[in-house]
Amino acid sequence: MQIKKSLFTFICVSFFLSSAAQVEYVDPMIGTDGMGHTFPGACVPFGGVQLSPDTDTVPHNLGGKYQHDVYKYCAGYQYSDSTIVGFSHTHFSGTGHSDLGDILIMPTTGELKLNPGTASAPDSGYRSRFSHDTEKASPGYYEVVLADYDVTARLTATKRVGVHSYSFGKVGKERIIMDLNHGIYNYEGKTLWASVRVENDTLLTGYRITNGWARTNYTYFAISLSKPIKNYGYIDRAKSNYRGGWGKFNVNCNFPEMGGRNIVSYFEFDHEDGEDLVVKVALSATGADGALRNLMAEAAGKTFEAVAQEASDEWSERLGAFRIDGTDSQKRMFYTSLYHTMINPSVYMDVDGRYRGLDQNIHHAEGFTNYTVFSLWDTYRALHPFLTLFMPDRSRDMVASMLYHQRQSVHGLLPVWSHMANDNWCMSGYHAVSVLADAYVKGVVTDPSDLLKAMTATSNVAYYEGIGDYLKYGYVPYDKSKTGASATLEYAYDDWTIYMTASLAGDSVTAGRYRSRAMSYENVYNKNTGFSHPRYADGDFKRQFDPKETTGEGFIEGNSWNFTFHVPHDVAGLIRLAGGEKKFVARLDSLFGMHLDPKYYADNEDVTEDCLIGGYVHGNEPSHHIPYLYAWTSEPWKTQYWVREIMNRMYRDGIRGLGGNDDCGQMSAWYIFTAMGFYPVCPGTDQYIIGAPYLPYMEVSLPSGKHLVIKAPGVSDRNRYVKEVRLNGKRHMKAYLTHKELTDGGVIEFVMASKPVRSRIESTVMPYSLSE
Amino acid sequence: MQIKKSLFTFICVSFFLSSAAQVEYVDPMIGTDGMGHTFPGACVPFGGVQLSPDTDTVPHNLGGKYQHDVYKYCAGYQYSDSTIVGFSHTHFSGTGHSDLGDILIMPTTGELKLNPGTASAPDSGYRSRFSHDTEKASPGYYEVVLADYDVTARLTATKRVGVHSYSFGKVGKERIIMDLNHGIYNYEGKTLWASVRVENDTLLTGYRITNGWARTNYTYFAISLSKPIKNYGYIDRAKSNYRGGWGKFNVNCNFPEMGGRNIVSYFEFDHEDGEDLVVKVALSATGADGALRNLMAEAAGKTFEAVAQEASDEWSERLGAFRIDGTDSQKRMFYTSLYHTMINPSVYMDVDGRYRGLDQNIHHAEGFTNYTVFSLWDTYRALHPFLTLFMPDRSRDMVASMLYHQRQSVHGLLPVWSHMANDNWCMSGYHAVSVLADAYVKGVVTDPSDLLKAMTATSNVAYYEGIGDYLKYGYVPYDKSKTGASATLEYAYDDWTIYMTASLAGDSVTAGRYRSRAMSYENVYNKNTGFSHPRYADGDFKRQFDPKETTGEGFIEGNSWNFTFHVPHDVAGLIRLAGGEKKFVARLDSLFGMHLDPKYYADNEDVTEDCLIGGYVHGNEPSHHIPYLYAWTSEPWKTQYWVREIMNRMYRDGIRGLGGNDDCGQMSAWYIFTAMGFYPVCPGTDQYIIGAPYLPYMEVSLPSGKHLVIKAPGVSDRNRYVKEVRLNGKRHMKAYLTHKELTDGGVIEFVMASKPVRSRIESTVMPYSLSE
Repeated sequence: MQIKKSLFTFICVSFFLSSAAQVEYVDPMIGTDGMGHTFPGACVPFGGVQLSPDTDTVPHNLGGKYQHDVYKYCAGYQYSDSTIVGFSHTHFSGTGHSDLGDILIMPTTGELKLNPGTASAPDSGYRSRFSHDTEKASPGYYEVVLADYDVTARLTATKRVGVHSYSFGKVGKERIIMDLNHGIYNYEGKTLWASVRVENDTLLTGYRITNGWARTNYTYFAISLSKPIKNYGYIDRAKSNYRGGWGKFNVNCNFPEMGGRNIVSYFEFDHEDGEDLVVKVALSATGADGALRNLMAEAAGKTFEAVAQEASDEWSERLGAFRIDGTDSQKRMFYTSLYHTMINPSVYMDVDGRYRGLDQNIHHAEGFTNYTVFSLWDTYRALHPFLTLFMPDRSRDMVASMLYHQRQSVHGLLPVWSHMANDNWCMSGYHAVSVLADAYVKGVVTDPSDLLKAMTATSNVAYYEGIGDYLKYGYVPYDKSKTGASATLEYAYDDWTIYMTASLAGDSVTAGRYRSRAMSYENVYNKNTGFSHPRYADGDFKRQFDPKETTGEGFIEGNSWNFTFHVPHDVAGLIRLAGGEKKFVARLDSLFGMHLDPKYYADNEDVTEDCLIGGYVHGNEPSHHIPYLYAWTSEPWKTQYWVREIMNRMYRDGIRGLGGNDDCGQMSAWYIFTAMGFYPVCPGTDQYIIGAPYLPYMEVSLPSGKHLVIKAPGVSDRNRYVKEVRLNGKRHMKAYLTHKELTDGGVIEFVMASKPVRSRIESTVMPYSLSE
Repeated sequence: MQIKKSLFTFICVSFFLSSAAQVEYVDPMIGTDGMGHTFPGACVPFGGVQLSPDTDTVPHNLGGKYQHDVYKYCAGYQYSDSTIVGFSHTHFSGTGHSDLGDILIMPTTGELKLNPGTASAPDSGYRSRFSHDTEKASPGYYEVVLADYDVTARLTATKRVGVHSYSFGKVGKERIIMDLNHGIYNYEGKTLWASVRVENDTLLTGYRITNGWARTNYTYFAISLSKPIKNYGYIDRAKSNYRGGWGKFNVNCNFPEMGGRNIVSYFEFDHEDGEDLVVKVALSATGADGALRNLMAEAAGKTFEAVAQEASDEWSERLGAFRIDGTDSQKRMFYTSLYHTMINPSVYMDVDGRYRGLDQNIHHAEGFTNYTVFSLWDTYRALHPFLTLFMPDRSRDMVASMLYHQRQSVHGLLPVWSHMANDNWCMSGYHAVSVLADAYVKGVVTDPSDLLKAMTATSNVAYYEGIGDYLKYGYVPYDKSKTGASATLEYAYDDWTIYMTASLAGDSVTAGRYRSRAMSYENVYNKNTGFSHPRYADGDFKRQFDPKETTGEGFIEGNSWNFTFHVPHDVAGLIRLAGGEKKFVARLDSLFGMHLDPKYYADNEDVTEDCLIGGYVHGNEPSHHIPYLYAWTSEPWKTQYWVREIMNRMYRDGIRGLGGNDDCGQMSAWYIFTAMGFYPVCPGTDQYIIGAPYLPYMEVSLPSGKHLVIKAPGVSDRNRYVKEVRLNGKRHMKAYLTHKELTDGGVIEFVMASKPVRSRIESTVMPYSLSE
């Protein structure tokens, strides 16, 4: 009874929290300093426009220095900067590689400057100094005062339209700069061509094509202006064969058809009327006509305030599905994490369903919404399972987007790291198969034939990163690929997800083939050392080998210490290889307890002290499941211990709050799952491995209309240990929760304790392992 | 009776000529040497593909020399060259400015060379020596032996597909090069981006975007190969930010997704099978998917021979509409001219009606075929009237294409010199209005409201080449524009065509306004000198003035001696200005009789001795109507004299046969009209001014099914004078024939004489003049 009463109280409290409350806890500034690589600007959930200030990108003539800045400015914004170059419309959220920053707009007054200038000499260009004191950021809204021009800039967005409102304080020219050369990842001259048409005095259309990290990226735009243009023009810093109308027109001044390889244009307005200038920038990847349709559908006739309110309302609705109890700091971190899970992937489709496919043809999406920005090496782990669990419609559309991507791929490959109708194949594996399998196993997609076709095609592209060798040798030899050991581990897991899909679909031939491939992890395991090792084609393991070393030792973005644990689909098998549970636990303990000499991460952009616990690297993905592996042993309390350590130390309520790149929401999804007390260690099973909840109370409105309540009365850093789990009042004796148990809704109650239950109760049902 | 019998004989002879006969008289080599700027390659009538050998374009590092070569290689081919770089798919016919040369393919053997090399050192690149002895060219067909590789190359085309057949003689590698950097007008690095996808071992797709004379030109392609590719690769000579798959793939070898700013790719085939390699290259401006649809619709499943036969048959049908008597040399010149009137404008639309509009959006053509390549300053004079008379369906579609162009223009301008969804605004005037008016006056288009809207919008774009000044001053002042005098003359005529359209449409307000504008030619006429003069804004004429000088004296591509006569709509008014008929005739006589010092054309690329008769310049357009102006005087025999002189001296049956650029068929259309014995001096009237026929017999099958027979028994250089004209047996007393008289069909008989009728019969009805 007491339990029920307290449950009732909690529900009432949470229900009657205004939905605005959740939004107010989101701090988009978290992660903007240092490695988080999040952006502070405005977007709606999964929106195609991310309108945000760029404090710098890559100066044009940096020489050898660019590599560092390419990494630093993944989101275009670094908190430590003191100038803003302008506001551009596309940004990755938390990535470890940079691109985008399309269609930069900057309001200026006074002398006309058509170059961005430098941070050290801001007056040399159109950029402006700013103070963080003037910044306001909330979901769907950003505000800042541009000190050099006394302009208050406010930003908001719809799915496809960025809306700017500029309040010009100073008397003088009222102007916006549109720099179509500006971009993130711009060091070799990114813009191939840019064009602006002045359709009339309040409407611009145009496009730019860039060669950035996306090999080619087509960004069309339609821009409406709340005031008529009085005067405009542009410069082109590049040579062009023919710019049109030479000698017949003055093309640089008030000529409505601007274009070139490196153009910066400006538009001047009447200042005397005292009205704010509202600029609505609609994007499309299909054409200026598509952008115009997007503009009309989403933003025409709306005030800035109305759009901002709609954006805020949409965030309120999404964030409001999660109601939690906790400290204000915990709430900020939780809702900000939740916010960060809903930025990428992003809608990449016009309002009428047209989108640019990977084949660069314009397609029409029949019955689904097309998404882009798939950072799958990161996001297959927790972000996609999170969406599959709580936003199955989104997940279904993302699966459809990936399937069409595969059909449009000349390689027949599912996306690896794809954005804007391109794949850059960053990182390793073909983890889209994991997302597909997980969605299938969890019933979010129901027809396996298309899935299996795409999965098997992808996994047999012989020229893709050693797959041919993998099929020939059973592993990717070190003499063929310097990251062959990790590739083998990633492929083995990916192949297991194909096995699961085929198996569930009743395709036993395919299942059999991929079951064998899924065991390939054994082929790089060196029983003499207990580590996964780089191995030569002749069968020998590499002799001189340092399992703490990240570079050159057969692994990518992770060392053998971490990567050896990358067998999420067969932890029992890995335990056997390790020589039994005791040795396995000892190895896990050593990972968390070791001292890692800084020499091992001095040159590694993804690893800093901020994201280390012993040798465990939370700042990068290969380790994310490791704390949960104790669940397969008799000492699950160690998971309970370490996940709270990680939550406390790696997610800090502050601008430098993220210990590593948020990676399109992967880090944040890890946070949400872990806060709930479980984590999808092995996507492709229907199991969520139980850890320990972080908060005393959480209630989630499920898409079915049901509610999932997670209670952990008295949980704290001291009371971090789980004594007992109850599901809808009954003692829960499994080390995991199933997808169905979660989607059915109900109450999960964790009985917390200050002391660990040091050994597992014998009747506990252990989680899935392939070879058991 | 005798006459009737001979008519019957002629008709029988001509009807029973096989239709192939006309094709056989066409020599596509005519005009390929020197200034003609025609191409010898393969196309179908008005086809979007013109597949032709490029003997050179602009070497990459020519420095100051490029300007000359840009002009020389307008068609990509110069007869005097001894090497062929390759075969590209788009060519202008006879222009005076260069562009295109898209998607170059070259078969090679032996050592792999991925640069074109130079003419002086052909072995330094993939180009090959060739001998004209191995060339065969006929409508829709071209053949040559590439000596360096012992490859016999044969080319043919459909509307949207170029088809190559390569017979490799030598044992060795069998290979094609695809150079996506190659292009005509390539001196600043024309290719912005190029991409090739190897869809499978017999299908390629891709595109390139260029910045040439067309500011941006999107050429997508789909290429089918008759043999499977064995091996392929590419180089990229430019820096790219990201080319895709670095470190993960060997992108340069057998990687099916090639791309870059300066790429040259190669494809190797099995030679041992002894089969010819057939390469079908479909083009589209909308997308690779559009190109693939074009390929499937027009060329899939057809042998090279079948496509070549279809191309030849289509030419036979078109050329067969004209049956003539004459010497073989006259027939070659006639049918070659006829051939040249049917190349530009060209279809610019996919088989499904999709096309790229001037606004760069993809449109669907509803109820018309979209055309491009409008060289209107040239072609409004005779080519468009020729098409309006004999191919009204084409003319109607071209008018529709221009109207949509105007709607898609951000300036609201009809095309000036437009190609591939761009306007380069080359030359002066807005002569599209003439084409529209002419089509309306002649009943080819019937609804004037769209026409008038487009015409009046075009003629009031104040910032277009002095229109604002023209409206303000009544002329374009010399101090505002160095070509203000000719601009004024061109605008005055163009405005007259708007007057005619409005007048016929019953819009008297518009008619009145444009009637006044049409008289503007008076404002640059200096009665003191009898010449049109450059005039300053203050009303003064330029004092130091040489009416023989082409450059810097107020005119464009013509001197005052010729341009003064540019009042085709009011010859009577011009005669009055000149001080009466006697003075006017004397001035005409002087033009043809004068000696023009070579200093006046030493630096003029459009004028050589080849195209001069006295001071009359047939090689460029402003003079084309002048020989017919005697028709407004009492001495029309002088027209009869001079037109035959021009026919004999400016159109020569040989490779150097054209005295000037053929200008998209304008020179050729002049030839055809003049050969028929009449010429549309003033498009926009329904009158064709009678000159003197060139051939003894001609019969034209009209689109209505009627026939037009033109007889001039005994005509010869001696019997060049017209004694009498009979229309359907009745004495014809007008100095002109009307459009209806021609389209009604029938027999026009010219009674020829060796001596001129020195003065006009008084009852002759004079041609139209505005101010009469």
